[in-house]
Amino acid sequence: MFNTTEVYIVAHSLVPGGRHYEKGLKELFAEAFLKVLDQVGNSNLGAVYVANAFSEVLQDQSVLGAFLSDYVGLRRTPAIRIESGDGSSGVAILEAYNMVKAGVYDCVAVVGVEKMHDVTSIKLNKALATITDYEYEGFFGITPAAQAAMAMREYMLKYGYDYEDLASWPIKMHERGSKNPYAYMRKQATLKDVLESEVIADPLRLYDAAPAVDGSAAVVLCNKPLKSNAVVRIDGIGIGAYGTYMGQRDTLTELLSVKDAVNMALRMAHSSIGDVNLVEVHDTYSILGILALESMGFVRPGETPRLLSTGALDAGNKLVVNASGGLKSMGFPGGASGMYEIVSMVMELTNQKPFDSLGNAGLGVVQDMAGFDLVSTAIV
Amino acid sequence: MFNTTEVYIVAHSLVPGGRHYEKGLKELFAEAFLKVLDQVGNSNLGAVYVANAFSEVLQDQSVLGAFLSDYVGLRRTPAIRIESGDGSSGVAILEAYNMVKAGVYDCVAVVGVEKMHDVTSIKLNKALATITDYEYEGFFGITPAAQAAMAMREYMLKYGYDYEDLASWPIKMHERGSKNPYAYMRKQATLKDVLESEVIADPLRLYDAAPAVDGSAAVVLCNKPLKSNAVVRIDGIGIGAYGTYMGQRDTLTELLSVKDAVNMALRMAHSSIGDVNLVEVHDTYSILGILALESMGFVRPGETPRLLSTGALDAGNKLVVNASGGLKSMGFPGGASGMYEIVSMVMELTNQKPFDSLGNAGLGVVQDMAGFDLVSTAIV
Repeated sequence: MFNTTEVYIVAHSLVPGGRHYEKGLKELFAEAFLKVLDQVGNSNLGAVYVANAFSEVLQDQSVLGAFLSDYVGLRRTPAIRIESGDGSSGVAILEAYNMVKAGVYDCVAVVGVEKMHDVTSIKLNKALATITDYEYEGFFGITPAAQAAMAMREYMLKYGYDYEDLASWPIKMHERGSKNPYAYMRKQATLKDVLESEVIADPLRLYDAAPAVDGSAAVVLCNKPLKSNAVVRIDGIGIGAYGTYMGQRDTLTELLSVKDAVNMALRMAHSSIGDVNLVEVHDTYSILGILALESMGFVRPGETPRLLSTGALDAGNKLVVNASGGLKSMGFPGGASGMYEIVSMVMELTNQKPFDSLGNAGLGVVQDMAGFDLVSTAIV
Repeated sequence: MFNTTEVYIVAHSLVPGGRHYEKGLKELFAEAFLKVLDQVGNSNLGAVYVANAFSEVLQDQSVLGAFLSDYVGLRRTPAIRIESGDGSSGVAILEAYNMVKAGVYDCVAVVGVEKMHDVTSIKLNKALATITDYEYEGFFGITPAAQAAMAMREYMLKYGYDYEDLASWPIKMHERGSKNPYAYMRKQATLKDVLESEVIADPLRLYDAAPAVDGSAAVVLCNKPLKSNAVVRIDGIGIGAYGTYMGQRDTLTELLSVKDAVNMALRMAHSSIGDVNLVEVHDTYSILGILALESMGFVRPGETPRLLSTGALDAGNKLVVNASGGLKSMGFPGGASGMYEIVSMVMELTNQKPFDSLGNAGLGVVQDMAGFDLVSTAIV
């Protein structure tokens, strides 16, 4: 029943992640939003979707859409908050995409915003733990880092890797981050740096975790490509859900919500995995980036650390993974993470610096995920 | 660009509000959801929208859609949580309506669920305060009750009412609740009861506040009226936003987001205020019910207490207000409140007990609102 409207990303902006103590949630929102508003001029925004995971806990603030849109003077434009944990951005894009595709609105803005600092790390970890199944996991002290550590251990056992082998992820991401002006982590990391870093949840180390940052990013989706040299068409979008706590899963090394989401998106785009040149995966922890790649079918199970260390996923190859340096280098802005990924992908696809050496970028996939394989979205 | 698909409410269910200490959020969700699933048989649900305001604070749980849908075995159906404070249900219905109207899905379920008990009242009040502007209001101790008290005081001064006059709202709602099997407050209230009740925030008394309850309710929206004797067509739906803190408002006695929402909904339905027989308003506090009625234009400003006490808004008249007894009698289940209102309206429109004495119900309006006039929706 879908009509044939195409959906384009006609504007984008990204506020680099950091410890923005001088800015509140409203200021961060405004910074990303006003930049895309400048780019689209006075085109009518039918609605604004706000992707945010933790404001209720971290800022004691709900009904976020209304307060944020009022702050930028959009008093009568519906502003709807989408909360799907750290996968909020993907779901917000999905909602916005469907609204434009279906002709409800001509143009819609999607803004991801999260302010992770200004609270103690105890409070932040408590907020992060809301993305676990609180009845079966969070209540007993399981955090997202603990979940990642369990998956990492299973992965190492299953494919015969040592911890050193998995360090290829943070090393590669830091290397790319060093060239990305939007990155929070701008220094290279050596194997020694990684191996000597603090153990967070054995075997997971500090360098395996994307650093929590305050940040925001925005895009505008329209049914027409506005005049701009940075327009990207969305060909497919998929969602997968698998809200099962870890104890009930058959395996921790396959992310089924990610698999479903990418299959749905590729089907919609009439494409296959082999057509894809670029992929941005949600690497809040190294292992989750690795598992996402393998669950989507881009890399054979167990092969990612090897391919990364040989440079087979670098620029110049058939497939480039996290050209941006991923969340590992850009930082982890909670529910805004997927927006960081999608804005990076737009810059990659349109050959904007710092990604202008990627050559002919054709088709990209952005994968976003909430918690451990709970709700995932893939955008082609 | 909208196609001409109609949208019907083909199934509904309501778990009466209460202190359901024996049920968690998942059990409450399942109870409402499985009832509507029974009614629609094996019709394919494209998605589930979950309206919930406070789970992050009250249950330490985010990514609610995924966990809830997994609990009822809907592993691969997208389940999206909508958070717009205590107005979450209206926004969830709006999203679901647009998806069906636009042909994205044939059928969509919307489930409102909230568990307000199991926590201390300090924690509950803290959660409720997230629906104020935390930077300008909540931080300084302003609660939704305080906001309502300020509006009540302005209303009394402006229209020359004493507190006794405004007691007509709780008295009427309790009277109706006594006949509604879905009501939490089933006893009648006398003027003496109201006047002798505790002052919460002067001049607001205990009887002016809808009691917090655990509860859930669900509907299924489809593009076809399934075989059922309880099908209602949605003719229009509107949203209004006015996310401005109270200190910045010109008046506290007009709710602009409510006004915008109902005007948009009536325009879409090609109807006017005069065509409406039934209305359910979001009366978390007596004064908010009164202001909503007047802001929508059903009653001239300042007239509601008088009309209520003379019985002019009772069954048998041109317009019947809160035949259900409103949230005051059914209870206030946070983000599920609007679902209580809409399910009541469906029962009213289809002449189900206890509403079968309403006569020829034609057109009904349901008004939902977040916080003090932040985001409102109206459904015609």
